[in-house]
Formats: sequence, structure tokens, C-alpha cells
Amino acid sequence: MTTYSAPVRDMDFLLNEVLQVEKYSNLSGFTDATPDLIAAILEEGSKIAQEVLQPLNEVGDREGCSLKDGKVTTPTGFKEAYETFAGGGWTGLTLEPEFGGQGLPYVLGIAVSEMMSSANMSFAMYPGLTAGAYAAIIKHGSKEQKQKYLPNMVSGKWSGTMNLTEPHCGTDLGLLRTKAEPQEDDSYKITGTKIFISAGEHDLVENIIHLVLARTPGAPEGTKGISLFIVPKFVVGEDGSLGVHNGVTCGSLEKKMGIHGNSTCVLNYEDATGYLVGEEHKGMRAMFTMMNEARLGVGMQGMSQSVVSYENAATYANERLQGRSLTGPKAPDQSADPLIVHPDIRRMLMDQRSFNEGARALLYWTALHGDIFEKAEDEKERQKSNDYMGLLTPVIKGYFTDKGFDYAVTAQQVYGGHGYIRETGMEQFVRDSRIAMIYEGANGIQALDLIGRKLPADGGRAILAFLSEIGDFLKEIEGNESLSLYLEALRQGKQYVEEANNWLMQNGMSNPDNAGAASTDYLYLLGIVSLTFMWAQMAKVAQTKIADGGGDDPFYDNKLKTGQYFVERIFPDAVSHLAKVKAGAESMMALSAEAF
Amino acid sequence: MTTYSAPVRDMDFLLNEVLQVEKYSNLSGFTDATPDLIAAILEEGSKIAQEVLQPLNEVGDREGCSLKDGKVTTPTGFKEAYETFAGGGWTGLTLEPEFGGQGLPYVLGIAVSEMMSSANMSFAMYPGLTAGAYAAIIKHGSKEQKQKYLPNMVSGKWSGTMNLTEPHCGTDLGLLRTKAEPQEDDSYKITGTKIFISAGEHDLVENIIHLVLARTPGAPEGTKGISLFIVPKFVVGEDGSLGVHNGVTCGSLEKKMGIHGNSTCVLNYEDATGYLVGEEHKGMRAMFTMMNEARLGVGMQGMSQSVVSYENAATYANERLQGRSLTGPKAPDQSADPLIVHPDIRRMLMDQRSFNEGARALLYWTALHGDIFEKAEDEKERQKSNDYMGLLTPVIKGYFTDKGFDYAVTAQQVYGGHGYIRETGMEQFVRDSRIAMIYEGANGIQALDLIGRKLPADGGRAILAFLSEIGDFLKEIEGNESLSLYLEALRQGKQYVEEANNWLMQNGMSNPDNAGAASTDYLYLLGIVSLTFMWAQMAKVAQTKIADGGGDDPFYDNKLKTGQYFVERIFPDAVSHLAKVKAGAESMMALSAEAF
Repeated sequence: MTTYSAPVRDMDFLLNEVLQVEKYSNLSGFTDATPDLIAAILEEGSKIAQEVLQPLNEVGDREGCSLKDGKVTTPTGFKEAYETFAGGGWTGLTLEPEFGGQGLPYVLGIAVSEMMSSANMSFAMYPGLTAGAYAAIIKHGSKEQKQKYLPNMVSGKWSGTMNLTEPHCGTDLGLLRTKAEPQEDDSYKITGTKIFISAGEHDLVENIIHLVLARTPGAPEGTKGISLFIVPKFVVGEDGSLGVHNGVTCGSLEKKMGIHGNSTCVLNYEDATGYLVGEEHKGMRAMFTMMNEARLGVGMQGMSQSVVSYENAATYANERLQGRSLTGPKAPDQSADPLIVHPDIRRMLMDQRSFNEGARALLYWTALHGDIFEKAEDEKERQKSNDYMGLLTPVIKGYFTDKGFDYAVTAQQVYGGHGYIRETGMEQFVRDSRIAMIYEGANGIQALDLIGRKLPADGGRAILAFLSEIGDFLKEIEGNESLSLYLEALRQGKQYVEEANNWLMQNGMSNPDNAGAASTDYLYLLGIVSLTFMWAQMAKVAQTKIADGGGDDPFYDNKLKTGQYFVERIFPDAVSHLAKVKAGAESMMALSAEAF
Repeated sequence: MTTYSAPVRDMDFLLNEVLQVEKYSNLSGFTDATPDLIAAILEEGSKIAQEVLQPLNEVGDREGCSLKDGKVTTPTGFKEAYETFAGGGWTGLTLEPEFGGQGLPYVLGIAVSEMMSSANMSFAMYPGLTAGAYAAIIKHGSKEQKQKYLPNMVSGKWSGTMNLTEPHCGTDLGLLRTKAEPQEDDSYKITGTKIFISAGEHDLVENIIHLVLARTPGAPEGTKGISLFIVPKFVVGEDGSLGVHNGVTCGSLEKKMGIHGNSTCVLNYEDATGYLVGEEHKGMRAMFTMMNEARLGVGMQGMSQSVVSYENAATYANERLQGRSLTGPKAPDQSADPLIVHPDIRRMLMDQRSFNEGARALLYWTALHGDIFEKAEDEKERQKSNDYMGLLTPVIKGYFTDKGFDYAVTAQQVYGGHGYIRETGMEQFVRDSRIAMIYEGANGIQALDLIGRKLPADGGRAILAFLSEIGDFLKEIEGNESLSLYLEALRQGKQYVEEANNWLMQNGMSNPDNAGAASTDYLYLLGIVSLTFMWAQMAKVAQTKIADGGGDDPFYDNKLKTGQYFVERIFPDAVSHLAKVKAGAESMMALSAEAF
């Protein structure tokens, strides 16, 4: 049995003390986001997460979803929980008031999503996918489509999906074969098979709005001939009423390693009625709208599993008595000391903790830039925020999900043999978190997106701006003795990234394989340096708070100690990633394909 | 569906070309181990592994073991496979001829075990545990006990187990409560509960010889009061016949993350008849005999899962068409290039491959020292070999199982979404390999064993000898231009280890937490440097073979390229581990226990 207690204090610290969301009250939606409202929402959200969703996490894993007569039943309790969740307005928290949403900042929404995902990742995926489909329609759909589909998606009455993958193509969408035949009434007939469709069919909602990539007749080959379609499970009439069951059926449920509570479907489309979203052949662009939203969310998922598994491991380490401290008994009245006295147990917990808190900071920092991009008036500000989002989304997706999984494994390790037994629930975190490294673009694709698209775009504008922002911060804290640890690490980290950039400029153009060979290590390097930047900012705030008399709250002191750990124990990985970036492609590509 | 093809060529290379097992023909058992015999055994072993055991790997996972009326049934086909396995003499390959074994070198046995474990880890555990129990009896049992139990264990007619863990104690065996009451006939009545007993009850054999740690009345507290007992499932009569069912029953089977094909039992002992092995209160010593044997075997298991998962990922990468090479189409006649053209896919495969081959070398090198220790006449030679075994066993257990798991995850990643689906079998490798990081002493315990016992023992004799052997090798290859890559890395690696040793001497004594805080990173550092040493030796042999006209065989050239990759892409991790070793315990231990 696992538990979850939402880190409300840390979320509040980031939103109100570090990011100071209040400062953005000129942006739409931020006016209402006062510290009090933020606190209230985090408090209410944590209740739902802890009391409604978390108790269903293990049920979901054990029961899974089942398919009968084309209908998918979610695990016991999911339907009631979803009603509570949607009924509480959580599905529309950050969505447009025009369609019934509350229009609150995205950065607050991501904090709430983190809670839900930590509590029950499989459950949280259902509304998560709706949000992705919503994003595609609101950005690329027609006025009529928005009015027809969005209100019920915002209220949670309907859900959404993303249909990209086919049996022979995942990453390489240019190969997809699903056909869209234009009809006389402006609709299309969609035919094809989509696999790995999360939340593809289930019993939580009245209707499911599938967003489907398909190819129209005579469309160009490859990704340039792909269009995006809305295919509702039940066709929606002019008056909004549900009509006939569309030609889309769930052929089977995938048997997966984890996230059993979410229905992963093979969806068969046979002359299903679909409606073009945006322009023909521009489906990839719309797809990326869903994807970018989803990728940040998947990075969050990775982190969320590290967070919840850390909490359980920390509790176990305080309770389980085993061995004696190397420096003499700490609980002499008991048969043994608690695990937490052992340095190597601390190492595991501190690895997790220092990652979790740093990653949360970067996630919220980036999400806030998402808000600024969407809502700010100043074009330059918007551009910079958009650049940051673009640059950091693959980093967050790739680095957070790799580490989120690693740290779920670490938390399981704290339990010793008991972690391997299903009953404790620790191995579920490992199995569930594993998918985040794969879906919405496997992490190797994130690294390629970073190095091939985001880094060189606009002459490197995004990375240069980010490094310059780090540079400004370095000047700001120069001479501050108590931040010298961060100053030194961050200065070094900035140099590492610059060195990697230079190497790439000199070697990546002449041989693109050098860029590919460097991609994952570059992503890690940038991830570590970004988290170091976040830790430096958090430490600065914590020190100020202590100086201002907040020293009674151990929160700030713990923050400083955890930051110190990050710099001493995680930052050193940066240098080996730099060495690998600079190792080049030669030995990586040397063997013939047959030699493998 | 996964496959396995035993790396016979690489095994042969190591045994005959690198280690040159022939040179040891003066040692008992080695006389017969000619290159021809070794080749024949590897060939026959690979057939059993590939044709008998591998096809049952997924069946074992799917079906698992079942318990009914106290009897455990293994998955379909296991019993027949075991009969083939034992009937072929594989259980007794390296065991004493006196008891019916073939007495072949341990180093050859470990190669055969690797095959079996790669093919079907759950299956291979059954004979593996028998070998551990055999080791305890042959080292510490009486003449009568040996004659009574060993022949049937050697032939595989009976199997063995190790009973250490109890619900409240795993690592901290001093806490164990199982009681042993002396009886008038020199036997004992054993009462207590043991958990996580692998192969604790099953239908493969006629009798199971449990080796059980228990406490006699009035025994000192802690580990100094523990004794070891033989508790046969069926009491064995004077004439070797099976008597009554002993007071040991399987209370339940653990529901685990993986290794479903192996029965992990809760064993309840109630006035079970047991026989003291060796001296009273000396159980820990005997336990360590089993443990050390087992730990090397568990390290092998970790590696074995990386090996088999690598093979499958490499095949998939050659077959799956997705995307185009960054340097232009490589299969222009097909819809896309195979995955293997992509650098990041290569990175994953080469990470695995360069680890696998380096790890195999270190494993066999260490196992050969096990043979030398057991069989050499020269006391100094024996001592050095024993030192190496002691030093490297925790490294192999800890480093190989952590990496074995990581690389099973890597192989799964190559499959993209398909790797998450149970059907492909890739996620089974992840779930199965996970246990190796935990059992026979969780990896944190290995690190503590290394840093607390093995390193300081006899004034650091083992590590100093190992470093001096590296130093000798460096002198040997100095000036060899074509080995300069290895020369440089190995020289640096040696310095890193020396630096870590110095740091520990200066800081570990004054504050033992500094040693604990450094332990895991020290283990990794030594693991990486040891593998670099092995790669340097392999490269030297490969170069000599090519110079001698063996260049037609691409094996040697591939070996050199893979070694280069290891130095360029894995060795760089050493420096960050050194930095962490030297980071000390301060920030790791800074938080109060309640702050977690």
C-alpha cells in the first residue's frame, strides 16, 4: 500500500515566492491568481488527489481495463472518481472561459496536474488527453468546431484522444496509411488502423472526440500529405445531440507493462465520419500543437512518479529498522536503527529529492513562459517565452522521464526485497513511469528535436537567450558569499553548454551523425545545467527569506541543504556528458549493421 | 517473442585467447579443459540454452508458479526441461568428481551459467541455488553430510536453497529469530518463518535441501549467535532413502514484479528436523561461502539480461524501418531506413555491447581467479586470487546488476512503444533483471562490503595488488601506438582510483559516514576502471591476432571498435564518480530524519 501527500508547501513556494505569479497580474487569467486563490486551489486539488485518486491507483493496476462487445470498462471506482473530478471543475481549470473553463494560468494547472499524476497516473491520463485534443481544436479548428466540441470537453462530459501511431509507423509519421475520402457534405470517410491509443475507448464519458491523422487522396507522400480530422465516437448533431455510433471501434486492448488503469486501444476506423481540422495537408502542424502540450505533460508525469515514489521510500526509510549507523547506534532502545541513518539510503533519497525539487522548479518556470507566450502583449517577451518553451520542452520530456523512471527504481531499491513484491506498490511506480520515456516521442526523438530543430532555429536564438539569462543571474549573485557554491557550478555549467554548442557548430554541420551522436548527452547536459540554474534561484530566495526572519520555518534551511546536495552530487554528471558530446560519431557508427 | 543466440565466439575468445585457460593445465580440472573440449561444451550448452530453456522463458513469465495443497507446480515445460538439463550432466559440470561431478574449471562453468541465465533466468535459478547450497556443505559440512547429500545434488536429483531472510530482517541478519532446539540424537528442531526463499518448494526434484540460518538456545545476540542447518524437505535415512516429510511447508508464493518462473516462497518451519553444518555460532561464515558464490552468480545474471536484451534490440534495429539516416537514405528502395542507421539507436546498442563484452571479460577473469584460489599450489598465488575474488565480487554484483537492468531498459527503449507491450517480451527482461539489484545483498550492501571490508582488509592488499597489476600492464603497452587510447584512459583510471583511496584514507576513518557516502560511487568507479583494464587486454589480443594474419575474421576488428567506444563513451563516467566520492557526507546527512 502506497500513500501520497501533495507537496503543497513546495508548490506554493515556487508559485508565490520564486516565480511570484502575482507579478503577472496584467496577463489574462492571472488577475484572479492571487496567493490566496492559489493556496485554495492547491489545497482543494490535493484533497482530490489524495483522497479520491490515490486510493484507486493500485486497484487500477490490479484490475486494468476490460473490453467486451466493443465497450471498455475502466477499473472499479474510476467512473465515480471521474465524476467527482469533472464535477469539481478540474477539467476546465486553465481552459478558456468562452467555452466554460476557468481560464486560470497554465502554470497553476501544471501544479494541479502534477498532483493528479502523482496520485494516479493512469487516471490522470484521461483528462490529460482531452487537454491535448482541446489544444488542437482551439488552435486550428473552425469557429463552428470549437462551439460544437469544446464546451463538453471543457466540462469533462466528453473526452479526447490523439491518433497518430499505426502498426508500421510510430516516430516516422510520414509512413502513415490511414485514408480520408472527401464526401459531398464536406465531411470525410476515415479508414485505417491506429494503435497505442491511450484512453481510446472507455466508460468515463458520453462521447470521445478522436483527433486522427490521415491522408487525403492524391496527397503528397511523407509528412507533407497528412491532415488532421475530428472523428467523434458518436456523431454530433447540429443541436449538439449525440447521433449514430461512428465507424470507429476498439479492436483490442494492449497488454502492457504498466498504466493498466488507462485503456490503450487498437482503434479500427472504417468509413468513419471525420471533419478536417484546419487546412488539408497541414496536419503535422496541428499535431505538434497537441504534441508540445502533451510533451510537457509527459515530462511532468515522469517527475510525478519520482515524487510519489520518493515519499513512500522516505517513509519506509524512517520506519524500517535495519542495521546500525556507521557512527554508532541512533536508536539504541530499539533492535536496530531506521534505514535513514545509512548514508547510502540517504544518497538514494537525496538524489530523488534534489531532482524532484529542481525539476518542479524548471517545469513551473517553463509553464509560466507558456502563459507569457499565450497572454503577454509585448511581442519580444512573447517570442522569448516561446523560444524557451521550444527549447526546454524536449529537455523536460527527455530528462525528466528518464530520471523519473530511474528514481522510481531508486525508491523501489530502498525497500530491498519488499520493493520487488507487488503488494508494496513500489514496483507499480517503476512499471507505470516506464511509458513516459517512450510515448509522445521516444526520448531519442526528443534529443533529436532539441539538437536538430530547437538549437539551430533562428541562429540559436533560444539557447543564446537562455545562456544570457543565466549570465545575468551570475552577475546578480556575484560577490554573494553564501551563494558561491551555485555561482561556481552555474558558471561552469554555462561554459560546458557553450563548449558543447561550439563543438556542435564545428562538427555537426560537416557530419550530421556527429549531432545525432551528441544529442542525448547534450539533452542531459542542458537538463542538469537548467536544474542548477533553478537551484541557484531557489537558494537565493530561501536565503532572502531566512535573512528576512523566516528562519523559523525549516523549509528554507532544508531547501538550501538539498540544493547543496544537487550541486555536489548531481551537477558532477555534467562534465561526463560534455565529454560524450565531444566524443563524436566515429566509434558509434563504426560497426557494420550486420555486426550487431 | 524474443530469441537468444549464445555468444559462443566471444566466450571462446575470452577463455582461449585472452585468459588462455590452457596455461593452467597444472591445476586440477584444467587438464581436460583443452580448447577442443571448451568449444564442445560451449556448443552443447548453447543448444540446451537456445532450444530447451529459451522457449520456456515467456511461458514461465506468463504462467508463473502455483501453490496447491502445499505443493508448488512450476510452469509448463519446466519439469521436462530440468530433466534434460540434469540428465545432460549440466548440474555437475564444475562440481567435485568425488560426488559425481565433472570437476571442470569454474570459469568454464560460469560461461555455461551465463547461457542458461540469458536464455531463462527463472529456470537457471533452480540449479544455481543448488550450487550455493552445495558450496556450503562441501566447505563446512561433515564427511557424512557430504556423502549423504552431495551426490544427489550434483546429479540434480535433489536441489538446494538458502534460507536467510525473515519478515523483519533481510540485510541485518543479526535480528533473525528462527530457533534451533538441540535434540538428543544430535539433530535440532527448527522453528521459524523464512521469506523470499527462491526455489523454496517446487516439483522439479525429489528432495530439496534447505540451508537454514537459525539461533540455538542461549546463543549470543546478533550475528555471532547464528548457526547453519541442513533441513531436508524429506528426511533422508541412513541408506539414503527418503523418509517422512519434514516440518517445513510453503505458506505462500510471493507475487513479484518478475522472475515468475521461479517459486519465491514463504517457508514455515515447525519443529523441522535440522542438522548443524560446521560449528555452532559459526553460521555467518558458512553463509558467506554460499553468498560469495551466489553474488558472483547474481552479477552474471544482471549481465545476462543485458546480453539477451541487446541481441533482441539489435535484431529489431536491423529490421524495423523508421525514418531516414541523417546522412541520406541508406535503404532508398524501401519506405524508410532500418533503425540501426540512427546514431542514437547505435548509442543505445553500443552502450550495451561495450558493457556486455567488457563485463563478460571481468566476470571470467575473476572466475579464473576463483579456480586459482581453489586449486593452485603456490600460497602467494592463491592469496592474490582470493584477494581479487573478494575485491571484485561486490563490484561485479553491484555494477553488473545495476547496469544489467539499465541496459535491459535501454533494449526495451529501442523497440519504442512496442517495447512496452508484453507480447514483444522486452519488458520481461526489465522485470526479471530488476531482482538482481536486490537479492543476495542489495547493491548498497555490496558497496559497503567493498568499502568497509574488502578495501581496508590486510592494509589494502587486494586493491594495491590490483592497481599494481594494472601498472604492470601499462608498462607492457607503453609505446604501443595503436593502444595509446587505452594506455591513456587506463592510466587516468588508475589515478582516479588512487585518488579515491587517498581521499578515503584521509576522510573515511575520521568520519565513517564519509566512507558510506562514497561507497556506491567508489564501486562504480572501480567497476568502470576494471572494465577499461579488461578492454585494454582484449584490444591487445585482438591487435596481435590481426597482426598475425587473423584480419579476415571481422571479430577482431569489431572488438577494437567496440573497445574504442567503451573508452570514449563509458569511461568518461569515471570522473564524475570520483567527484562524488570526494563530495563527502555533509550534504547527504544534513537533513533531519523528519525532514524526509
